[in-house]
Amino acid sequence: MTIKPPQPKVGPFKVTRDKVLILNQLLLPHEVKWVECQNHNEVCDAIKKMYVRGAPAIAIAAAYGFYLAIWNRINQEKSINLKFLESIKKKLDSARPTAINPARATEKMLGLASALITNKTPKEIKADSVSLLLNLFNKAVDIHQDDALRCYNIGKNTMNHIKKLIPKKSYQILTHCNTGSLATGGIGTALGAIRLLNDENRVSQVYVDETRPYLQGSRLTAFELVKEKIPATLIVDSQAGFLMQKQMIDFVIVGADRITKRGDVANKIGTYMLSVLAKEHKVPFYVVAPKSTFDLTLNKGIEIPIEERDSKEITHVKGIAIAPKIKTLNYSFDITPRENITAIIHENGIY
Amino acid sequence: MTIKPPQPKVGPFKVTRDKVLILNQLLLPHEVKWVECQNHNEVCDAIKKMYVRGAPAIAIAAAYGFYLAIWNRINQEKSINLKFLESIKKKLDSARPTAINPARATEKMLGLASALITNKTPKEIKADSVSLLLNLFNKAVDIHQDDALRCYNIGKNTMNHIKKLIPKKSYQILTHCNTGSLATGGIGTALGAIRLLNDENRVSQVYVDETRPYLQGSRLTAFELVKEKIPATLIVDSQAGFLMQKQMIDFVIVGADRITKRGDVANKIGTYMLSVLAKEHKVPFYVVAPKSTFDLTLNKGIEIPIEERDSKEITHVKGIAIAPKIKTLNYSFDITPRENITAIIHENGIY
Repeated sequence: MTIKPPQPKVGPFKVTRDKVLILNQLLLPHEVKWVECQNHNEVCDAIKKMYVRGAPAIAIAAAYGFYLAIWNRINQEKSINLKFLESIKKKLDSARPTAINPARATEKMLGLASALITNKTPKEIKADSVSLLLNLFNKAVDIHQDDALRCYNIGKNTMNHIKKLIPKKSYQILTHCNTGSLATGGIGTALGAIRLLNDENRVSQVYVDETRPYLQGSRLTAFELVKEKIPATLIVDSQAGFLMQKQMIDFVIVGADRITKRGDVANKIGTYMLSVLAKEHKVPFYVVAPKSTFDLTLNKGIEIPIEERDSKEITHVKGIAIAPKIKTLNYSFDITPRENITAIIHENGIY
Repeated sequence: MTIKPPQPKVGPFKVTRDKVLILNQLLLPHEVKWVECQNHNEVCDAIKKMYVRGAPAIAIAAAYGFYLAIWNRINQEKSINLKFLESIKKKLDSARPTAINPARATEKMLGLASALITNKTPKEIKADSVSLLLNLFNKAVDIHQDDALRCYNIGKNTMNHIKKLIPKKSYQILTHCNTGSLATGGIGTALGAIRLLNDENRVSQVYVDETRPYLQGSRLTAFELVKEKIPATLIVDSQAGFLMQKQMIDFVIVGADRITKRGDVANKIGTYMLSVLAKEHKVPFYVVAPKSTFDLTLNKGIEIPIEERDSKEITHVKGIAIAPKIKTLNYSFDITPRENITAIIHENGIY
């Protein structure tokens, strides 16, 4: 029996054979606009500009981008070789360097593509191009659907773990950034778990950090929670500590962009702060992420490259200046050491 | 010899006998607009709408507001009695309930006014009305100038304390909200100390939290620092912990809205979070405030009333919606317990 994961009300992609439509999440919650990507450069651009964000979602975007690169290459009647495939992977992987998931997805695409062209002459590759394309398209769709199922399993695991660990009828939950259906191919990771808890009437309130500077919390998570009719309250990031002090938070739940071997977690800026506050207040702090988020080639969090983003993210909101001309420092992620984490939960259990 | 405190480049008031002009700080840094207040109701309104903010500055505004109430009353040829004076004080004090300073200032104004009318008939009060007005105006100006001198003394005390406690040539400093000339009658409290340190070339970098939701950091502190040419970098509130983790902060310095007998501090939302982060990273955490901020009638921080403000502060920026329709929780202040504070520094020493 195939498990059918629950369908979220909003998702980041619409896919056909010759293009992928990516929801421009920068315009949410007030405008729903789909950006058409016909090649991998446009997909890279959509990732860089953060039309699509969230480690699992950009991995899926990268997979479709890889497919579109081959689709265009074949349409242009140019040759396909390993060097070309590797350059595509490299380009897609570097669109946002902190998350490891895109590299995992393009690895799979590259593996399949190179297997299908190995020991073939350029003429043979050309002759088999339709089959190559079909295989790669299906692979990208698989990566997408796998993520939906994975989200469901992650959500169930997380829910069961929390129910066991925190024996309360319903919970007051704090979450950060967006880890929902807009960030994944399914119901989400941390937010997916919240949805499943809510399906069992176990959510008394979700406090959502607005998540400056990009406001993924207020623009995206708040949008999803309202759509899914889950009781939710929006707060500024710096209020989290005060709510914990007032014993208004039963647990904190966040996603991850990359997790090292020792269990250090790179995630949206502000995550580390929440972990310190949770530790101080003895509030459980859960990290919820697919196994593809683990990068076992790194041991310590300090080894993870941290992206610095444009000054305008801080000094402007919707194109309007909210600060004078001044230097900024805009780390997009931070590192939470394993010591601050109660559990890292993935699709197959707990790390 | 009278000490002349240094003059800041920007301040919140312009004063004449029949009105006070209050700088609308909501429009900073992009527009400099003065709001004319001809009576205490308009002053209350300016405080409530946060055209003027910062505990010392709203205390000065309240003093001028008290004077304007009497000025109008006399112009309208209505009687002045203790009941009327008390109603004015009550109204001004309640414009923003968390800070104690306005109540202290109006207490002084009320004390002088009631002394001047005690044991006088309405006719005598009327006959002496010019003298009453002059005395009250001078009292309000005194309160204003006292604050300028107090800022200077606070700044010097703080600077000397820090130089003794942290023996470094220059400092990387983190500050929150606005505690500068826009928040006071002089060079500011915490930011005043930073100015004096900078005059001695002891500031290598000031990291300014943007201070959501009202952005006092990015709009006001950043504005002042740029004007005063002090090296400064703007960050989002949730990045503070990461900078401490990276050992980029030598000390944190903030102001206070109210301080209890045991040394708990009510200050801008996010202050408590910074204090927890500073404790975790063994970074000194200084609270800098005039003695008028102390409320010795309260012992514990939990007794301080905490103002909840309008939802739109979170969901809108400059009138533009940045979130969907969703419930919010918008505490304007939080409570930092004395255990998290390295020192509370005022004009006469350390508490």
